[in-house]
Amino acid sequence: MKQYRRTARRHPIQYYIDGILNGNRITLSQAITLAESQLPSDQQLSESILTELLPHTGKSIRIGITGVPGVGKSTFIEAFGALLTQEGYKVAVLTIDPSSPKTKGSILGDKTRMEKLAANPMAYIRPSASGNTLGGVAAGTKESILLCEAAGYDVILVETVGVGQSEISIRELTDFFLLLMLAGAGDELQGIKKGIMEMADTIAITKADGDNITASKLAKKSYQNALHLFAQSEQDWYPKVFTCSALEGNGMHTIWKEILRFESHMKERGYFQQRRKEQDLYWMHQYINEQLHKHFYQDTSIQKMLSIKKDNILNGEELPIQGAKVLLEQYFSSITKA
Amino acid sequence: MKQYRRTARRHPIQYYIDGILNGNRITLSQAITLAESQLPSDQQLSESILTELLPHTGKSIRIGITGVPGVGKSTFIEAFGALLTQEGYKVAVLTIDPSSPKTKGSILGDKTRMEKLAANPMAYIRPSASGNTLGGVAAGTKESILLCEAAGYDVILVETVGVGQSEISIRELTDFFLLLMLAGAGDELQGIKKGIMEMADTIAITKADGDNITASKLAKKSYQNALHLFAQSEQDWYPKVFTCSALEGNGMHTIWKEILRFESHMKERGYFQQRRKEQDLYWMHQYINEQLHKHFYQDTSIQKMLSIKKDNILNGEELPIQGAKVLLEQYFSSITKA
Repeated sequence: MKQYRRTARRHPIQYYIDGILNGNRITLSQAITLAESQLPSDQQLSESILTELLPHTGKSIRIGITGVPGVGKSTFIEAFGALLTQEGYKVAVLTIDPSSPKTKGSILGDKTRMEKLAANPMAYIRPSASGNTLGGVAAGTKESILLCEAAGYDVILVETVGVGQSEISIRELTDFFLLLMLAGAGDELQGIKKGIMEMADTIAITKADGDNITASKLAKKSYQNALHLFAQSEQDWYPKVFTCSALEGNGMHTIWKEILRFESHMKERGYFQQRRKEQDLYWMHQYINEQLHKHFYQDTSIQKMLSIKKDNILNGEELPIQGAKVLLEQYFSSITKA
Repeated sequence: MKQYRRTARRHPIQYYIDGILNGNRITLSQAITLAESQLPSDQQLSESILTELLPHTGKSIRIGITGVPGVGKSTFIEAFGALLTQEGYKVAVLTIDPSSPKTKGSILGDKTRMEKLAANPMAYIRPSASGNTLGGVAAGTKESILLCEAAGYDVILVETVGVGQSEISIRELTDFFLLLMLAGAGDELQGIKKGIMEMADTIAITKADGDNITASKLAKKSYQNALHLFAQSEQDWYPKVFTCSALEGNGMHTIWKEILRFESHMKERGYFQQRRKEQDLYWMHQYINEQLHKHFYQDTSIQKMLSIKKDNILNGEELPIQGAKVLLEQYFSSITKA
């Protein structure tokens, strides 16, 4: 992320706060850059900005959108975002592309793919390289959401590629989790794990147009049956499956109505705020665990010993717990001496 | 687990090694008690025993069996174990009951439920209270498996109640994961999460007898469809659904044949040993993470600060990462001073 850091100039805190509260996109982008930065001084500045802005955050609906590559996430978001801005909402899109952590390629790619939305004065698009991950999501995504809220965005769309751990983290960042799926993938779930379907608050079958309409309807039925078999929400929310076409604009409005229905359902029952509070504690513990983990595995004496212990265990010469204990002893003796 | 510790007498290492290699059940039980003990001196002795026995381990097939309470796990294991011993296999059953961590209740309960198998000279049953968990499984389960193998058991059945994290750990302990399910539970998955079904190598619908036969066949079809929709194994293994009746003995042999088919399938492709090696490294890292976590949260200064930080975060006065950073600074300053 050097390209950001190089252009990021430091300003006094008030510069960021005024700019963001006035909805200035350049200031917003600068503040997100600080939030994504790994430099301790940037992080400190970012935390000070966020602490000041906290009273202005929390008023949006945060929507996580996931699906495998090729499902049409960008196309969906372009059409969905356009609909929302037409209805008068300010829309922020945070896209996370784990495939290109350090190049500008994906960023330009995303911007090109969402051309119209990027040019829309009611929309703000911010691509993040996820080189530095916290639980699979780019470092700073949580902070970026808060900054966008302070800048007055009503709907925050957080887009991730549906691989690995990223969906689990996105579930811990957003109020509503939309899973995009393709029709006609036959017996397979297109690489989407069942655990991901379980987390979805709604599923949308994309590209339900032209020759694909029949297949989409079948897929809808099939996934709806699968959800019926599994679903048993503690919060009385039973995820539905919809079809949509970004090309023809079909289904977009129905999905938005479903999201609004979800929002009132959850708010009426107190689950909306509860989920956000649980998310905040989750992120605190998650950050602590990651730092403890990092501190251990970055210890130079541990790095020296670890591969030997791994070899011993793989060769069956040492028990896993035995190896772990020796490493832990070494670690604690190393840091107390330091 | 005081009742164990009180009766556990220490013997020289050779006593345990000779006894176990001779298949002495009393010595085996004593060694498992040491492996489950939280006393550092017991743990040291246990590690020495296991290190000596390592060359004699690894030759069994380790089968994890899970299902919700009421699915008939004990009845299934009683019938399944009887079949295996008739075929000439020595069978060890390790049962983990998280519901009664400290009483002997569950232990006596299990023993009574598996009366016939307990009296079978070819079978060994060891109930463990899971008061001290490592990733949801009783501390020492991994070690117990190795000890049973050294004692000459050909098949190790590890039984857990299907709740929470226990299935995930059982997947990391065993070669084959059998999920027991009930028919006639309608639209719901009997509290079994989708992620658990995803881990299953085979599903068996229990109690497929009498009035329940039609419902069992329907359930089989329904779960098989759900698995078809999801399954896409990297190892070319597509889990099947079977019906069985412990009462009438139906289906047990088919399930065992499927397990043997799985074993050769995995061994031919090299996945069998690979899974075991990955499991060993998993347990090493898991143990390290748990200890780091424990060390942090048991720190007295952290305990004092944590609830304040939690309140601040829940009231929106502090950012999760900010709170985490203050706690981490406190922790590292506290342990380096100690």
